[in-house]
Amino acid sequence: MNTDKHGFYFSYLCLFMFICGQIFLCIFCGEILMNIIKVNSVQREEMIDITREVEYIVGESSVKEGVCILFTQHTTCGLTVNENADPHVKSDMLGFLRGLIPQFYEGFRHSEENSDAHIKSSLVGSSVTVPFQNGKLFLGRWQAIYLCEFDGVRERSVLLKII
Amino acid sequence: MNTDKHGFYFSYLCLFMFICGQIFLCIFCGEILMNIIKVNSVQREEMIDITREVEYIVGESSVKEGVCILFTQHTTCGLTVNENADPHVKSDMLGFLRGLIPQFYEGFRHSEENSDAHIKSSLVGSSVTVPFQNGKLFLGRWQAIYLCEFDGVRERSVLLKII
Amino acid sequence: MNTDKHGFYFSYLCLFMFICGQIFLCIFCGEILMNIIKVNSVQREEMIDITREVEYIVGESSVKEGVCILFTQHTTCGLTVNENADPHVKSDMLGFLRGLIPQFYEGFRHSEENSDAHIKSSLVGSSVTVPFQNGKLFLGRWQAIYLCEFDGVRERSVLLKII
Repeated sequence: MNTDKHGFYFSYLCLFMFICGQIFLCIFCGEILMNIIKVNSVQREEMIDITREVEYIVGESSVKEGVCILFTQHTTCGLTVNENADPHVKSDMLGFLRGLIPQFYEGFRHSEENSDAHIKSSLVGSSVTVPFQNGKLFLGRWQAIYLCEFDGVRERSVLLKII
Repeated sequence: MNTDKHGFYFSYLCLFMFICGQIFLCIFCGEILMNIIKVNSVQREEMIDITREVEYIVGESSVKEGVCILFTQHTTCGLTVNENADPHVKSDMLGFLRGLIPQFYEGFRHSEENSDAHIKSSLVGSSVTVPFQNGKLFLGRWQAIYLCEFDGVRERSVLLKII
Repeated sequence: MNTDKHGFYFSYLCLFMFICGQIFLCIFCGEILMNIIKVNSVQREEMIDITREVEYIVGESSVKEGVCILFTQHTTCGLTVNENADPHVKSDMLGFLRGLIPQFYEGFRHSEENSDAHIKSSLVGSSVTVPFQNGKLFLGRWQAIYLCEFDGVRERSVLLKII
């Protein structure tokens, strides 16, 4: 648990550093915007809150009401919406999934030792969709948007499309 | 199983009552519509069919072809599309998931005794997307849209966005 | 594994045959296009790559930037995005899920002996959303779009909506 806690604070530090340097590659095409959020994981398994980055992009957009579609371009991480308050929810989720879908399972034949991450990726899903209005995401009181890293340490790309 | 059956009928009764009182908070913004469907669960775990509510809103919309995006504003329930005929499918799904991801698991540290519900919520997902045309959802013959309650009894909000 | 390998090549053969005959039922409505991709599974459990079919439709579309929404009209299969290179990833995923959610589980009461497929369908999800630009899907280097068959042999319909 100690290393989890350490990783927790460390991930916040790294997140802060990389938010500063994140690339908002905006491609204007009529009224539609495409952005890329870069996320850097610091552990093999980690839930990284990207709500502020998403809110920032949605807030800057000229579209006043619509949906924000996030899509990750990887096969060993996922995107989800879950609790933003108690960090134990994140560690409970990652810990339980680690037990349920172990990295080293005798039946796995894929040679990269990350079949567990591919499975978790498909179960959690590669995209999330969140409605917004007047630059504010319609998230519930306890909701945050997470990139779920299942095979870090890596840099991940999340595409953000406003419709 | 008896209590499940009882809950099944009771949930229909409650659903009927709350359909009558549900709030269709329509916010017009150009051609885009935002609605909220209120859903009341009566058990801790329950799959509540919201297809008729969604069809009603899509049918009333001025948009003739597009997609209907549903998003739940909570972190201990989910949205899914699954079988609309045999109620055993619902009880098989909830029962199997209850065994797979138990409420009381020694590793959980989140103090609200609902880490299982957070995990199920992320696995099932917080949104569903269904295409429609001429006011009719493009659902298959056996498909219905469900709110999956994993930590009831609660009132839940489902946002509906037509694009 | 031999039968898996056999099924693997056989599925490619069948896929090729059915791609030739697939129905692109295009319904024009303003700028929005609706297509149907027909997919034929040849095993009970199978991940069928439909990326080329999706890319073809997106490439032919007059919409230059947007998102491509895929929706399956069934309750015992799913749609996912995962690795396109090593076929062991697919067999690892299907094999692990088969062990985790067995077809014959004593608690199942649904009489069609496919409750496992209904559960997997809701966990994997009935839709995927992929951004695109200038007729090219924004898939990552290792990503492909799969129909996950959990209760074949069947013909499946995947709706494709460009927004």
